[in-house]
Amino acid sequence: MLREAGGNAIADAGIDKSRIQAAYIGNFNGAFFCNQNHFGAMVTEELGLQNTPSMRTEGACASGSLAFRVGYLSIASGMYDIVLVGGVEKMCHQTTEVITQGIASGMDYELEANFGLTFPANFALIASRYFYEYRNIKNEMAMCAVNAHRNGRLNPDAQMQKEITIESALNSAVISSPLNLYDCSLTTDGSAFVVLAATEIAKAQKKHRIVEIVGTGHAGNNLTLYSKPAITSFPAAKDAAAQAYRQANLTPSDIDFAEVHDCFTITQIINMEDLGFYAPGKAANAVAEGQIALEGRLPINTSGGLKAKGHPIGATGISQIFEIVTQIRGGSGARQVKRADIGLQHNIGGTAGTAVVNIFRGR
Amino acid sequence: MLREAGGNAIADAGIDKSRIQAAYIGNFNGAFFCNQNHFGAMVTEELGLQNTPSMRTEGACASGSLAFRVGYLSIASGMYDIVLVGGVEKMCHQTTEVITQGIASGMDYELEANFGLTFPANFALIASRYFYEYRNIKNEMAMCAVNAHRNGRLNPDAQMQKEITIESALNSAVISSPLNLYDCSLTTDGSAFVVLAATEIAKAQKKHRIVEIVGTGHAGNNLTLYSKPAITSFPAAKDAAAQAYRQANLTPSDIDFAEVHDCFTITQIINMEDLGFYAPGKAANAVAEGQIALEGRLPINTSGGLKAKGHPIGATGISQIFEIVTQIRGGSGARQVKRADIGLQHNIGGTAGTAVVNIFRGR
Repeated sequence: MLREAGGNAIADAGIDKSRIQAAYIGNFNGAFFCNQNHFGAMVTEELGLQNTPSMRTEGACASGSLAFRVGYLSIASGMYDIVLVGGVEKMCHQTTEVITQGIASGMDYELEANFGLTFPANFALIASRYFYEYRNIKNEMAMCAVNAHRNGRLNPDAQMQKEITIESALNSAVISSPLNLYDCSLTTDGSAFVVLAATEIAKAQKKHRIVEIVGTGHAGNNLTLYSKPAITSFPAAKDAAAQAYRQANLTPSDIDFAEVHDCFTITQIINMEDLGFYAPGKAANAVAEGQIALEGRLPINTSGGLKAKGHPIGATGISQIFEIVTQIRGGSGARQVKRADIGLQHNIGGTAGTAVVNIFRGR
Repeated sequence: MLREAGGNAIADAGIDKSRIQAAYIGNFNGAFFCNQNHFGAMVTEELGLQNTPSMRTEGACASGSLAFRVGYLSIASGMYDIVLVGGVEKMCHQTTEVITQGIASGMDYELEANFGLTFPANFALIASRYFYEYRNIKNEMAMCAVNAHRNGRLNPDAQMQKEITIESALNSAVISSPLNLYDCSLTTDGSAFVVLAATEIAKAQKKHRIVEIVGTGHAGNNLTLYSKPAITSFPAAKDAAAQAYRQANLTPSDIDFAEVHDCFTITQIINMEDLGFYAPGKAANAVAEGQIALEGRLPINTSGGLKAKGHPIGATGISQIFEIVTQIRGGSGARQVKRADIGLQHNIGGTAGTAVVNIFRGR
């Protein structure tokens, strides 16, 4: 996976690989799933970049976006001009029990996971509270899944290649009430890479439309669920978004389309509000009105999202960025959105103990 | 450990913790040893910095130095002015078998660890080859251990508080021939933190002598042992050192003292050569002459090193930096070296698939 995705990114950039000065790779839990750490050196060895400095970054499901963050900082610092940034996860060879345990390492083990809290249970609690504070949005959550599957069906790189209906989503197995099977993202093996370059270097290439990082944000919040003052909004997502909007000098209404972290459908709903797209408690209405569809006012998760494109945890953030870049370049084929000049990518780790938001603009 | 070491670093810096803008934390294998990932958010929650962006970095035994690297880049980029950088590892609650398996995740699992290669065996192969290419340096390797234990005895933070003799080292149990017990670093639980600040901010504080990062290097090399063209020198260590010397405009002879990665005594010997302190095959002579002692020409591992101070893997790089800073400030008590203006810190991950070198200078 590293060779294929990393090699594809370098080939797409149209540069000789000797120009890559550093490699940053997100991986969440290779240690537990594969007895493997030290992915930085694995990436460089697999890609024939042996003498390139590398590191792995980790922040649960935001691990890939953190690799991107380091790549961005390394170029902004003047240390490097061209860096390779990627992510990888492999877990499908394990049993559901092992996968569930491994993923729960993204929460506090001693205080929460050790007592049986899993991420589906965690977000089920959040959904229940959301229903209590606002209203029952089971139907609209199902619509998020339908939208994701529809888009995934149009994305050859998506793991799930079938459309679903609201009825099948609502009637799918209960995983952790009120979350059903189709409210949950996928167990996925996958890898994604992008090449970052300083603006003047990117300008010099004529192969692709230039996609500029106009705003970037990175924020944190409590690791534990029990200690959060509120759970129907993620302060880290709001904070990261505010940073990105401020740097980009843009507002939520300027965003043409977005990849929004949807580990569960309720997560997508809450994040749509935290990103400022909709007022608290109102995102579900927009979903019901079809605003997030490919032809809607604000297409969301055109890739299929974590729900249908898949959730290869350490690679997820980079796969979102890959989708944003592909759309801005106009290369998304049947799922191409009409207005694709400004795209936002949003990725959280754990119960949004970590959040990263990046805004990209085509030049 | 996070609360104690992180809290101590913030208190020592004499700043209000609200001024910390980001936290970067090295951890190698909490996933395997403790079912725990997502240490960035754990650090910030434990230290009451909940809304601070954070991430974990990993590159096997160099994980802590990679956190430092990201902290350095983040300030150099202009993104932040003050960041908290640390590392942590906890493994002593596990059996030796589990610890050995967990540590082996720093090599390539599928190609090497899965077939029984462990890090002691790995470095035993390297030692054997070194003996073949140069000469048998068992005695001098034992002297490295004696030096480390002597220094550790003078460091209240060191795990191992006893002096040893060359004879006891040579007669200790064979771990993987030609490495005996005292050629191997320790299984350690530990944490270390430092606060980094932009130069103008550091200058404004009057509490401590300012310790400036004058040179920094980060380099890579093959993850696998089998694919390395040579194993008696580590190209990544040489490359990282060259970067740091170039940036600092210094040469090896300008270094007053150094913390050199000594996961095994042979590793220290090879690294002393790769850092340019001694010609290939000649470091052992310098050890025999006492040059690395506290009162010698080039004191090495004044902290006790990984051998006696301990090797809390994810924290190791930061604990080396802590020692360098403490020496430059003149705060090392009985182990204080006379000339302590310029100190070098060197940390490798795996079989030097990752290497980091930093040079610090007191102003």
